[in-house]
Amino acid sequence: MRSDFKALAAELQQTWHQTIPLSQFMQLEVAEGLAKQLTTRTQLAPNNLNLHNTMFAGAIYTQCTLTGWGLVWWLLEQAGLKGDIVLAQADIRYSAPVTDPTPLAVCRWDGDIKELAFNPKGRLSLSLEVELYSQNTVAARFSGRFVALAQGE
Amino acid sequence: MRSDFKALAAELQQTWHQTIPLSQFMQLEVAEGLAKQLTTRTQLAPNNLNLHNTMFAGAIYTQCTLTGWGLVWWLLEQAGLKGDIVLAQADIRYSAPVTDPTPLAVCRWDGDIKELAFNPKGRLSLSLEVELYSQNTVAARFSGRFVALAQGE
Repeated sequence: MRSDFKALAAELQQTWHQTIPLSQFMQLEVAEGLAKQLTTRTQLAPNNLNLHNTMFAGAIYTQCTLTGWGLVWWLLEQAGLKGDIVLAQADIRYSAPVTDPTPLAVCRWDGDIKELAFNPKGRLSLSLEVELYSQNTVAARFSGRFVALAQGE
Repeated sequence: MRSDFKALAAELQQTWHQTIPLSQFMQLEVAEGLAKQLTTRTQLAPNNLNLHNTMFAGAIYTQCTLTGWGLVWWLLEQAGLKGDIVLAQADIRYSAPVTDPTPLAVCRWDGDIKELAFNPKGRLSLSLEVELYSQNTVAARFSGRFVALAQGE
């Protein structure tokens, strides 16, 4: 079981930036990683703005979806599992404009890492919620159903 | 009532590219505009990819949300109304990987443009659905609730 969260954070960030151009353009970073919680940060300006000079709805969604995807990746690494992670469905509610120069998104999971396993069809499904903060205000709430497909299937 | 759809398309695209950096990075364009329908196009490579070399979930969402937002803008222009358009809530389902080099997203509205009006609180709410196509397959279905706030309020 991997538990060097600093090394995991560096690897996750590298994975994003090398394989998902939008993540690099958005300046997405891991702000903090605990065993079952991941926090990400972006920069509002110059790339994530909309025409109101607040955070663009698509950028908010993208930071949230990568935070959720990242936590699934994070949990699988700790569980010693290898899977291709896809997002099947998501819902997002925007409740306030984002004006924070460095918006944070937080995703937590309450399960037991030792019980993570692929089902007989080689699938693992996790429903996660992500909150995006502008200063201390929850500006958006995202929920997503992620599916990890065991590699080799 | 504005009905020069070619000029509207150019203005919408300029609005996106000048005020939403992600839209330019994603190479989002208006592919076609009819009175109550808007079709947009992006380029899969190089900027909208994920680590599976298909279209990144956040890019799919962003193309869909701007297509829906764009149609609201499109309808308001034809109705002679000025409003700030925000997205309040959205849901998206991903049903197939996107491999099309130029994915198209289509949004249609079935209402009557002549009946569009702000309510007494200066708000106009529209729920729209957007489909994103990979070749002839509907790869994602997005639904969003957009709210236009009368300018000056």
